[in-house]
Amino acid sequence: MIITMPLKLAKRMDLLKTSEIREILKITQRREVISFAGGLPAPELFPVKELGEITNKILEKSGDMALQYSTTEGYAPLRENIAKRMNRLFSTSAAMEDILITNGSQQAIDFAGRLFLDDGDIILCESPTYLAALSAFKSYMPRIISVPTDDDGMIMEELEKTLQAHDKIKLIYVIPDFQNPTGRTWNLERRRQLVLLAHKYNVAILEDNPYGELRFEGEILPAIKSFDAYGIVTYISTFSKTFCPGMRIGWLAAAPSLYNEYVKIKQGADLHTSTISQMAISQFIDDYPFDDHVKDIIALYKERRDFMIKLMEEKFPAAVTFTRPQGGLFIWVELPKHVNTTELLYKCLENNVAFVPGASFFPDKKVEYTLRMSFSNMSKDRIKEGIERMAAIMNVYIV
Amino acid sequence: MIITMPLKLAKRMDLLKTSEIREILKITQRREVISFAGGLPAPELFPVKELGEITNKILEKSGDMALQYSTTEGYAPLRENIAKRMNRLFSTSAAMEDILITNGSQQAIDFAGRLFLDDGDIILCESPTYLAALSAFKSYMPRIISVPTDDDGMIMEELEKTLQAHDKIKLIYVIPDFQNPTGRTWNLERRRQLVLLAHKYNVAILEDNPYGELRFEGEILPAIKSFDAYGIVTYISTFSKTFCPGMRIGWLAAAPSLYNEYVKIKQGADLHTSTISQMAISQFIDDYPFDDHVKDIIALYKERRDFMIKLMEEKFPAAVTFTRPQGGLFIWVELPKHVNTTELLYKCLENNVAFVPGASFFPDKKVEYTLRMSFSNMSKDRIKEGIERMAAIMNVYIV
Repeated sequence: MIITMPLKLAKRMDLLKTSEIREILKITQRREVISFAGGLPAPELFPVKELGEITNKILEKSGDMALQYSTTEGYAPLRENIAKRMNRLFSTSAAMEDILITNGSQQAIDFAGRLFLDDGDIILCESPTYLAALSAFKSYMPRIISVPTDDDGMIMEELEKTLQAHDKIKLIYVIPDFQNPTGRTWNLERRRQLVLLAHKYNVAILEDNPYGELRFEGEILPAIKSFDAYGIVTYISTFSKTFCPGMRIGWLAAAPSLYNEYVKIKQGADLHTSTISQMAISQFIDDYPFDDHVKDIIALYKERRDFMIKLMEEKFPAAVTFTRPQGGLFIWVELPKHVNTTELLYKCLENNVAFVPGASFFPDKKVEYTLRMSFSNMSKDRIKEGIERMAAIMNVYIV
Repeated sequence: MIITMPLKLAKRMDLLKTSEIREILKITQRREVISFAGGLPAPELFPVKELGEITNKILEKSGDMALQYSTTEGYAPLRENIAKRMNRLFSTSAAMEDILITNGSQQAIDFAGRLFLDDGDIILCESPTYLAALSAFKSYMPRIISVPTDDDGMIMEELEKTLQAHDKIKLIYVIPDFQNPTGRTWNLERRRQLVLLAHKYNVAILEDNPYGELRFEGEILPAIKSFDAYGIVTYISTFSKTFCPGMRIGWLAAAPSLYNEYVKIKQGADLHTSTISQMAISQFIDDYPFDDHVKDIIALYKERRDFMIKLMEEKFPAAVTFTRPQGGLFIWVELPKHVNTTELLYKCLENNVAFVPGASFFPDKKVEYTLRMSFSNMSKDRIKEGIERMAAIMNVYIV
């Protein structure tokens, strides 16, 4: 390679820094590390055998179609299945025509950024919030402002103050069910109020709901989208947690005026999502009892959550507090304020146990004494060993 | 739905208009229409049976891994297979580490736009050029300028004049092999000169090569990337034309300095491409003779091209000229200058035969008397019937 002047990149690339955490987390993938870091689903519940049968059936019956280009909007029977399921579980009233299939919900987040955000526009979010959503939004160079949030969701008075204070707010991004990273769930009233406030200030909402189906106890709450009388909410979800993440099938639901814009974005971004993968998931929903499959996942995760919470209560120092999520994959831990959890992680890695330091989930004011742990991807033996290792380090380190 | 103020969208959405052509082309999908419009591969050569066997094998051996999240860069054995194949066929010297797997090459085009283009930057391209690349770039609000092009590629004197005339040129987009829509191929000398000129003016190159393997006669030419001593060329390609498009597996190859930026973009855009689809294609390359499979595609397309060109020579009015591509999927047709091919398309649709009017392939100065036809997706019977229908209309309409 000849020495040469570096090419001039777009300004947005200054914002997209390599995540230090991502680099650290590579270490956690070593086999000897017990990692509470990733948000990986339990592979023992992937419908591997069923997918083999389904794939053979699709290839035999309609291989030509399954391997050919297909429409940008997505495979119609899958969109129909999604709309029906969403409406039944989350009280929405989506039509098949409102559903656009995306490569996981991550792609839908990127599209919402592309649809709404000019350089310098403002996006509001919870704090902490989903790390990779912030990365996606940064491509469009917005200012990201967090809204104070408690156990029931964004605090509406604070949200309204923020909406009054700035005139370039275009989008409010929220994860109302078993939030990543905190595991918290918005109450019903806040869901309703959010739509009213967003409408009052003419701001769009992006409702990200990848975990909502994985409720271990209590009743599923209506989606924020179910209160959307104005067509301002884009609802996004995914099969990553209820089927498998490896196939990258997610979706968005939006009113026609936004939907048509999203289709144009999808067309330019990658034409369409894998035809055969869409057909496979739709066939699975047709041929197998999807609800029972999700119940199996819930049963396993609930068992793991209960087991892990109980151990954390027993073993972690009393000064360490944590959420008791009613569903999802994550527990959020707060340590005494003097603790820096990135430093704690290095100590833990020496003992082959890992988590994600909380700071990177904060869009603005980093809170260094927090961390995220996932219980979805690990056997009870490993959970026990991992919690004991973490507790031993905490007991030395944080006193 | 309550009547409400429309939400404010990002400025880029003003540029992403619904393509009129796309709407017209929906009509061409009716069964009774003989359509030369799409660029669809021949489904009779999709490896349907093989894919069934491979999928079963992967799910049995490593279903857990195939359905789980995987790395943003892509499945390492596939990246290895791609690098080896590219290097052998197109004289590049890519390492596995230079290959990033994308959802078709369309996604790689979008990523190149995102990496290089700020609002108001300039991208240079051939004229005409690939329609959907222009859509992808428009998300980043560049100015698109075409460089005069002849049968051997961009005219280098004209390119240098353009490079001298503007200081915001960031990217040169080219399709050097069997170009979409013209079917033209750049000669060796232009390939070499393009890299030298781009380097002289410190501008990046995006080399889009989806059709290069489908050469019916003559020798494959070295890729532009093979002359890239400076790390300024991003090479992109796809399995859409050599395996199947429905799985959406493409890739980009770039030097490390750019590669690391592309990985960050991919991470934010959709985390990674389907694990199982990547494993399936890699297994196909391992288990079956990929070269022989491509030879079968070449044999079929060559037969169709020969048959179609011969008929066009016999039946089309003498004033109609067209390219004789040495490979790929497309023939480019020029009619007498007074003909508007969008009007001609309406006449043709009345007789159930279709093509793509050429105007939409031009980034700036539209040339209305051109059209694109594809020979890849149709039996000889249908080609014969279709050419006869078009010829009959031309003979009445263009005189």
